[in-house]
Amino acid sequence: MMQRFAINTATFGFQYPIEQSIDAIAAAGFGGVAPWRREIEGQDVSAIAKRIRDAGLKVTGYCRSTYLPSLTREGLQANIESNRRALDDAAILGANSFVMVVGGLPKGSKDIAAARAHVAEGTAQLLEHGRSLGVRIALEPLHPVYTAERSCLTLLSEALNMCQQIEGIVSAPSLGVCLDVYHVWWDPNLKRDIARAGVEKRIFGFHVCDWLVPTADVLNDRGMMGDGVIDIPSIRAEVEKAGYQGLIEVEIFSEQNWWKRPVVEILKVCAERLTTSV
Amino acid sequence: MMQRFAINTATFGFQYPIEQSIDAIAAAGFGGVAPWRREIEGQDVSAIAKRIRDAGLKVTGYCRSTYLPSLTREGLQANIESNRRALDDAAILGANSFVMVVGGLPKGSKDIAAARAHVAEGTAQLLEHGRSLGVRIALEPLHPVYTAERSCLTLLSEALNMCQQIEGIVSAPSLGVCLDVYHVWWDPNLKRDIARAGVEKRIFGFHVCDWLVPTADVLNDRGMMGDGVIDIPSIRAEVEKAGYQGLIEVEIFSEQNWWKRPVVEILKVCAERLTTSV
Repeated sequence: MMQRFAINTATFGFQYPIEQSIDAIAAAGFGGVAPWRREIEGQDVSAIAKRIRDAGLKVTGYCRSTYLPSLTREGLQANIESNRRALDDAAILGANSFVMVVGGLPKGSKDIAAARAHVAEGTAQLLEHGRSLGVRIALEPLHPVYTAERSCLTLLSEALNMCQQIEGIVSAPSLGVCLDVYHVWWDPNLKRDIARAGVEKRIFGFHVCDWLVPTADVLNDRGMMGDGVIDIPSIRAEVEKAGYQGLIEVEIFSEQNWWKRPVVEILKVCAERLTTSV
Repeated sequence: MMQRFAINTATFGFQYPIEQSIDAIAAAGFGGVAPWRREIEGQDVSAIAKRIRDAGLKVTGYCRSTYLPSLTREGLQANIESNRRALDDAAILGANSFVMVVGGLPKGSKDIAAARAHVAEGTAQLLEHGRSLGVRIALEPLHPVYTAERSCLTLLSEALNMCQQIEGIVSAPSLGVCLDVYHVWWDPNLKRDIARAGVEKRIFGFHVCDWLVPTADVLNDRGMMGDGVIDIPSIRAEVEKAGYQGLIEVEIFSEQNWWKRPVVEILKVCAERLTTSV
């Protein structure tokens, strides 16, 4: 019953080595996992890939890109290079896509147009490398509260425009988007833009969690599905109406609550809430 | 030199009675003040209006609306009534506009479409009352981080669409927008939408402060102009290119920093930064 769903390992707060997370996710009956580079890099990536396959799990997404914008050309190139190496690992892992959180304003800059230009340039280069490896790239528009520090790419429409500018409209895109309800639920154009993403075949991933009221910390106080104010079933319905058939991934950053709980308990509650509140 | 600028009394953290704030703002040479209902209601409004006029200050905006959305029709009507009374006071104060922060999801609701429908319905009713009084209404789109608790109206384009739907495109609108750099700086369509707001003559107010990195608290840790990452001069240039000739208003919510300082110091730094960083 949980085969339709995946767990992003950030949901465990990186309490465990990746091997233990993989085994726990598979034991709980989920269909996929989304690992992070901090768990993979410097390890035997092929061995981890094999462990994931042997556990019967898919890799929904590989998280996540080095931020692209920099104050200098050299900095931008270094950031692109770092992402190329991550794409190599994404290929070994057999990831459905490489998830890009594009980065915000470089420290010391107020030039958001320049940051966006770096994102477009870097993404175009990475797309070529991804294609050569057979790895798709999913741009994740982040909530506008993260614009300064994490992502100058915020609106779904903006992400789709960037895909279109870089790749054009094609029948089987290699550049798409990853939709996280936390980042997009507030957008007055959400329904329209999900439909467009479907027509353009750009929905590569779909993440769920919830927006708590109040939110103690916009980065690390995200909620379990059902504990907040996002109408997740309605967004899921739009995403599926738009043709998305991939796994639905749980990703919860929750320093003071879920990250303090044992992985078995987190997975049990995720499974319940995926049934009742997604 | 400061006649082009106004001070929103929230910038003082409501440390002083309104009379003292008015006198301090006028003594520092500013051209306008934006008072809050908490400082006005229950007082002799005509006397406060006279004191503002006698001090040579304009009232840029009267802050702010009762949130409109409710779980019930009765609740919506009560919220509209509360705003009618505030419009009456705005008329006595001679406010350039009544500033509307429209409200988010009513407690217990996840239905953002319903909240938006209440906002549209309530605003339409208030516009009629405002017209009868000669008071313009300025919808203030808030940063999307406030969607749940303060404003389901977030994008400037969304605010302009609402103005158009309610009032149509007219030569001298009574319904417009109040632009605050804190709320809109991140928007990829900002330049386009400011230009549209200008063409449609909808820019009724322009607020400045700054987005700090890091931000300790998205509500009450806003920065003094120049201390954050917003390219304020560039946004100001767009707003003035769009035809805005009204006062530029400083509004800073800063519980741990500016609100702890004496009003004279706050005004001195505002005056400096309005010269160097706006």
